[in-house]
Amino acid sequence: MATVAVIGDGQLARMMQTSAIELGQSIRLLAGAQDSSAAQVCADVLIGDYTDLADLRRAVDGADAVTFDHEHVPNEHLQTLIDAGVNVQPQPAALVHAQDKLTMRTKLAEIGAPVPDFAAIESVADAETFFERVDGKVCLKARRGGYDGHGVWFPDTIEELRETVTELLDKGVPLMAERKLAFDRELSAMVARTPSGEVKAWPVVESVQRGGICVEAISPAPGLTPQLAGQAQELAGTIAAELGVTGVLAVELFEVDGRVFVNELAMRPHNTGHWTQDGCVTSQFEQHLRAVLDYPLGSTEAMQPVTVMANTLGADTEAEMPVAERVQHVMRRFPHVKIHLYGKSYRAGRKLGHVNVTGRDVAATRREAQLAAHFLTDAVWADGYLAHETK
Amino acid sequence: MATVAVIGDGQLARMMQTSAIELGQSIRLLAGAQDSSAAQVCADVLIGDYTDLADLRRAVDGADAVTFDHEHVPNEHLQTLIDAGVNVQPQPAALVHAQDKLTMRTKLAEIGAPVPDFAAIESVADAETFFERVDGKVCLKARRGGYDGHGVWFPDTIEELRETVTELLDKGVPLMAERKLAFDRELSAMVARTPSGEVKAWPVVESVQRGGICVEAISPAPGLTPQLAGQAQELAGTIAAELGVTGVLAVELFEVDGRVFVNELAMRPHNTGHWTQDGCVTSQFEQHLRAVLDYPLGSTEAMQPVTVMANTLGADTEAEMPVAERVQHVMRRFPHVKIHLYGKSYRAGRKLGHVNVTGRDVAATRREAQLAAHFLTDAVWADGYLAHETK
Repeated sequence: MATVAVIGDGQLARMMQTSAIELGQSIRLLAGAQDSSAAQVCADVLIGDYTDLADLRRAVDGADAVTFDHEHVPNEHLQTLIDAGVNVQPQPAALVHAQDKLTMRTKLAEIGAPVPDFAAIESVADAETFFERVDGKVCLKARRGGYDGHGVWFPDTIEELRETVTELLDKGVPLMAERKLAFDRELSAMVARTPSGEVKAWPVVESVQRGGICVEAISPAPGLTPQLAGQAQELAGTIAAELGVTGVLAVELFEVDGRVFVNELAMRPHNTGHWTQDGCVTSQFEQHLRAVLDYPLGSTEAMQPVTVMANTLGADTEAEMPVAERVQHVMRRFPHVKIHLYGKSYRAGRKLGHVNVTGRDVAATRREAQLAAHFLTDAVWADGYLAHETK
Repeated sequence: MATVAVIGDGQLARMMQTSAIELGQSIRLLAGAQDSSAAQVCADVLIGDYTDLADLRRAVDGADAVTFDHEHVPNEHLQTLIDAGVNVQPQPAALVHAQDKLTMRTKLAEIGAPVPDFAAIESVADAETFFERVDGKVCLKARRGGYDGHGVWFPDTIEELRETVTELLDKGVPLMAERKLAFDRELSAMVARTPSGEVKAWPVVESVQRGGICVEAISPAPGLTPQLAGQAQELAGTIAAELGVTGVLAVELFEVDGRVFVNELAMRPHNTGHWTQDGCVTSQFEQHLRAVLDYPLGSTEAMQPVTVMANTLGADTEAEMPVAERVQHVMRRFPHVKIHLYGKSYRAGRKLGHVNVTGRDVAATRREAQLAAHFLTDAVWADGYLAHETK
């Protein structure tokens, strides 16, 4: 059977291993540390540095396909591997659009995908011009390396914009700006695409964010019109094809007055796709493996009317109750909640796991997911439920 | 989080690892070989001999619970571990009933569970007496070590019985006999039980056997009356409680004229429970881990009206088409079929994997599962479908 080499050792690689096992495959991991989330659960682990070409070469040797759990492998190394005949999926020509926010927006505008008005910011003058153009509604972004709310600024005044831009350019941070949209909500349209060009879309989800971090994904996005859902899926498919994406692509969207605008792209399994593990015939992790191997894609049909994913984020202070005990409380109260933990040590705000809950009613299912995810971090029932009430 | 030590390296241990990963746990494996089904996919593997106490001691050191993927660990070693404070689940006092078919039937009769008429066979005279008692409808069984049709004989005449018994007793095989039932079909009632005594039952399935090997499991068993289903579930729960079983218990049953009789017991995840991976909120592998750790049990609700599991058994001659290619054909024709492969090398009749299919219609779902499982072994569509018909 096939061997897929995965560069990166986080929870995405960990959850790819789950799918690989059932497919009878084996994952070769290039991990930074033996106790990392993914390395804890894989048999074939190489400890090394993903910016080091020699380590990369060792990790991909003999693999049928090479893929990633993050976008940070230097493209020149990937190109070197490709030139040597290695099957890298997705390829740098696609990845560059997930790595550089300006390149991404320029390309999307070129193919006619809806993006908020944007501009390169190479000077304070650029910033001032853009500020005028968008009536002061500026979202400033580092072109590279931002995630979960990092690398994004919302200056309220032109003075604040000038100051931030000066400071960041002085530090050598390449910048861009886009119009800050007064959006109704955030959506995520996910697809998988194979090198042969097969594309399959999952139902479009609503992504609930707090402080720039996804805290919840609701599938399907409640009240989304079939027209807009179809448009979003088609848009994601077009982006995947036009940019040459292979594997899973997440297109994060803003919904504004019945229209969608692209916010960000991720070319790998994505937090807003975790619900597929328990709510869908084919999970994003299985689909990613199938796609990068150029296997036929699996059904993306939902198994239940509603699935809600809620993230377990490290609380401000770690709860005294051990995690294993918290897990048991959640299992006792909610026998149908699916708990996914990443084997990571506690840090405030860190993604430590998630829960998936399927059901028929959006409000009830969300409530259960939120309560369960919250208890896993805080060891407190947010609704005042007492443990001894459990039968 | 918890560490569960698993003794045994087959597909059951492999699939426990899948569930452990998602729960944030880690499996410690005592495996016979590094390339065994489970050792291929676990990070914490000890190569050793499960009949060797020193190897067992090393494998279980520091584990929160110790469990098994087979019943062959010597009970005296398990008792030694328990005496040293190791948390072994299930315990030898329960396991003995899955190890010795006479002990099992004697105990079941004692607690009033329905079993076919049976007797110990320690001499040819015993066999002759039993032959008379059951009007020649004799099923002769080795008390220990039988599986998948091995260790079972159906002598047609008293001469054949005498001959077989003589030969086996001469070889030192302890024997028992039971009345061969003219059953309508085979069922499997599975439950999980925790050391604290919580019990949860899955829907009762029909188990389709060929040559003593389970080839298919249909959930729920088609046409089974709610009364008989309830009785079978209650029976499995009673057996689990009375025998002190912890973890998953499979009770294989004969259905005869609207009644059930116990055929065999297995105290671990079981082939007839593989459907739960894709058809149920909680799979038997997750449930087994939860049960042996004395965690609250998960919901056993079915996700779809019908789930069919079909085994992928090694064909008489291995197909020329590589497995990875067969997998792609099945994926192309049936995007909703879930493929599970065990990473095992080909051998005629060997369980190499299984497929699960969910649906609404029993006949259609069975047909798809059978076609898919058959193609995975034989590289031929049993219905004459041609690959080029695939879009």
